[in-house]
Amino acid sequence: MALVLDGSLAAASIRLQIAEEVKAYVAKGHRAPGLVAILVGEDGASQTYVGAKKTACDEVGYAGDVRRFPASITEEALLAEIEKINQDESIDGLIVQLPLPKHISEEKVTQAILPGKDVDGFHDINMGKLAKGDEAGVKPATPYGITLLMKHYGIEANGKHVVVVGRSNIVGRPMSMLLSAAAPYGNATVTLCHSRTQNLAAFTREADILVVALGKPGFVTADMVKDGAVVIDVGTTRVDDASRKSGWRLCGDVDYEAVLPKVSAITPVPKGVGPMTITGLMMNTLEVYKAKFA
Amino acid sequence: MALVLDGSLAAASIRLQIAEEVKAYVAKGHRAPGLVAILVGEDGASQTYVGAKKTACDEVGYAGDVRRFPASITEEALLAEIEKINQDESIDGLIVQLPLPKHISEEKVTQAILPGKDVDGFHDINMGKLAKGDEAGVKPATPYGITLLMKHYGIEANGKHVVVVGRSNIVGRPMSMLLSAAAPYGNATVTLCHSRTQNLAAFTREADILVVALGKPGFVTADMVKDGAVVIDVGTTRVDDASRKSGWRLCGDVDYEAVLPKVSAITPVPKGVGPMTITGLMMNTLEVYKAKFA
Repeated sequence: MALVLDGSLAAASIRLQIAEEVKAYVAKGHRAPGLVAILVGEDGASQTYVGAKKTACDEVGYAGDVRRFPASITEEALLAEIEKINQDESIDGLIVQLPLPKHISEEKVTQAILPGKDVDGFHDINMGKLAKGDEAGVKPATPYGITLLMKHYGIEANGKHVVVVGRSNIVGRPMSMLLSAAAPYGNATVTLCHSRTQNLAAFTREADILVVALGKPGFVTADMVKDGAVVIDVGTTRVDDASRKSGWRLCGDVDYEAVLPKVSAITPVPKGVGPMTITGLMMNTLEVYKAKFA
Repeated sequence: MALVLDGSLAAASIRLQIAEEVKAYVAKGHRAPGLVAILVGEDGASQTYVGAKKTACDEVGYAGDVRRFPASITEEALLAEIEKINQDESIDGLIVQLPLPKHISEEKVTQAILPGKDVDGFHDINMGKLAKGDEAGVKPATPYGITLLMKHYGIEANGKHVVVVGRSNIVGRPMSMLLSAAAPYGNATVTLCHSRTQNLAAFTREADILVVALGKPGFVTADMVKDGAVVIDVGTTRVDDASRKSGWRLCGDVDYEAVLPKVSAITPVPKGVGPMTITGLMMNTLEVYKAKFA
């Protein structure tokens, strides 16, 4: 029977551990970790994501703060707000919820965040340290969250063949670098596949651990997966579903029902990888905070 | 018959092209590209490397300048020299020859170079852009030089399975990222192998293009290579050789004589990848320069 890698349970358990650590630091007289989320405009999905991050902060005992700005804010004014937070000693982590309005450069905003406060792990300097396999950087939240999920369920990457499908900046590429690094969560042999890969199934069938981050619902079928593999499904696409009140449901990149009987472990969608991004964010913030008071 | 990928010939040809481009810019009234190499101390190998870089500058028409400092220079004074060069508009590229004396942090020095002048491509910001597959960064010189060698001989990575053996910061990891990027020299499916890889030969035998950067002389034997593969040997280790006047010769990671009959193309050692590092450096400098006057 396949082990279902329940991200909600893992996230809850890891957040409990974080809460304990925070309590211990606060008991020693330190301030609580501070995490600020910047939200520009009124996008519904962004409000939901930021709300979930605020809830997670409350859960673990962080001073979580959402700073809201109208969609009309200028790039200059937003950069000035970021600079203010960069210089605020009481704030450990800063995230800017994407997407931003078209007149603001997401690249410029991302690179304006102090690398040491960039708890999303998107800054070039953090990506550079990741590329070098240097643990001094802040790790990208989603791939890091996936390593935390694997650790929670005792899944070792060390010496395994990991096949990552999808080469996005926020999942596929950093995931491949994390898992190949000489680090406790790494040491895997990693193959990175993408749209130009020929005979993709020949690669996926070789995977001890298969990480799929394509955004193509149900793309990975049972014949593409090795018996006994571990399958991590990062896809979350809204598909129409007339049977739901909402009219849609979230669908992963893996044909879950068909693949389930073959594998040793698999993440469901939803409640698989999803909750681990925020957990990665929380863990990054804790690590940044602890480094200051260690 | 295997094609021998002659790095000396490719380097000479590419440098001729660079020289032509420089001539055209200078004819339009622009200054020549400026490249400064900092050399600290009296290490013999470092002097040789810097000398070769200076010769390459002369060949392509760059204003090449070697700034020598005694091994006793303080870190602070060296960082001040770097800052001076960072601010000098007439200098496009700056390299600091490693290793440095023990009292100077190589990491601090590397990160002090302005990313836009870091023509070795070692700065975290350049590594970060590489990690993201963003072509705006300066590419690491050796991996970039290898892509130039491949291009010179018409070897396409697109859609091929590349296996990289070795996960160093200066070759293996950046090589894997370059070749998997959505870029003219990239689009390969890349597997990164290393000391923790289990059953390494099973991976190397699958490679359409095998890149080996281990530093273990003769490690890759004929049975580890697929018929018709392209083999890129980045290893250059000095091994004892009583038949040479010097008492040593350079030896690659590949058992060249045994592998040669099986492959479609292979780099010799020496005069394979070796000359391409400086060529990558020269090309990086040209690109930085051209971006200013385009």
